[in-house]
Amino acid sequence: FGPKAGAKEAIEIYVDMREMRSAVVKNLEDMKASLSIRTLDVGDYVLSDRVCVERKTTDDFLDTLFGADRSLFEQIIAMKHAYMRPLLLIEGDGLYTKRRISPNVIHGVLASIAVDYGVTVLFTANEAETASFLFSIARREQAERKRSVNPHAQ
Amino acid sequence: FGPKAGAKEAIEIYVDMREMRSAVVKNLEDMKASLSIRTLDVGDYVLSDRVCVERKTTDDFLDTLFGADRSLFEQIIAMKHAYMRPLLLIEGDGLYTKRRISPNVIHGVLASIAVDYGVTVLFTANEAETASFLFSIARREQAERKRSVNPHAQ
Repeated sequence: FGPKAGAKEAIEIYVDMREMRSAVVKNLEDMKASLSIRTLDVGDYVLSDRVCVERKTTDDFLDTLFGADRSLFEQIIAMKHAYMRPLLLIEGDGLYTKRRISPNVIHGVLASIAVDYGVTVLFTANEAETASFLFSIARREQAERKRSVNPHAQ
Repeated sequence: FGPKAGAKEAIEIYVDMREMRSAVVKNLEDMKASLSIRTLDVGDYVLSDRVCVERKTTDDFLDTLFGADRSLFEQIIAMKHAYMRPLLLIEGDGLYTKRRISPNVIHGVLASIAVDYGVTVLFTANEAETASFLFSIARREQAERKRSVNPHAQ
């Protein structure tokens, strides 16, 4: 069994379990996206066979910069291996003002992600804008590019 | 003849002629970057053999979205062909508020640049931050990566 005809046109998005409680998911539901909740190996949102998005709030991002683990870069490398177009999405204001961190340090990290790893970084103001951005990319990928969604795509 | 010994350690940046009057260049000079002014075929700043940056103010960027020419995408494609790590830098606030343009349209364009063309977009608040970001990337590239600067690199 499965969804009835007519549901076919919906934009499909795979969402990692841990994102379930975020307002991003609520917003995507309001947009009538067809969400599949999974435990994803890498990333938080899979939008097509080539696009995977790791979402970090500004606080999450700043926290990882000084964590003992290298989790941010590990996640980025894992995304890069699994998907052709990995995206890092940083959500919320205050990237340069929330902590007493030199802008040079933040620039250095963003430069490294973009230049050394070739991962595109996107910025959004809040959950609603993140949802809108994700939906916009998924629609482009699925409607215009006719790409299927596959959370295990290589 | 040429610069005397001691100048070797300076960070070299190639700058397109048309950027000369911008405060970005003034700021880079204050940072003691070694600037070479050229008429660049593509991009505005060349930071290493693989990194080239096209700088757009928010107004420039929004203008190109509705220009009859496809100059923004043409510039991006040209950068992509010539350099391994092309970057688009959008400078200034108000990307979503300056014009009566739906955020969805702007998201669509940014998504296309990032996903379809694989070009990373960076955002800065003003000329000083742009200069700081450019210097930071150039230093990483030249000091840590030992990459030379070559404005005609393929």
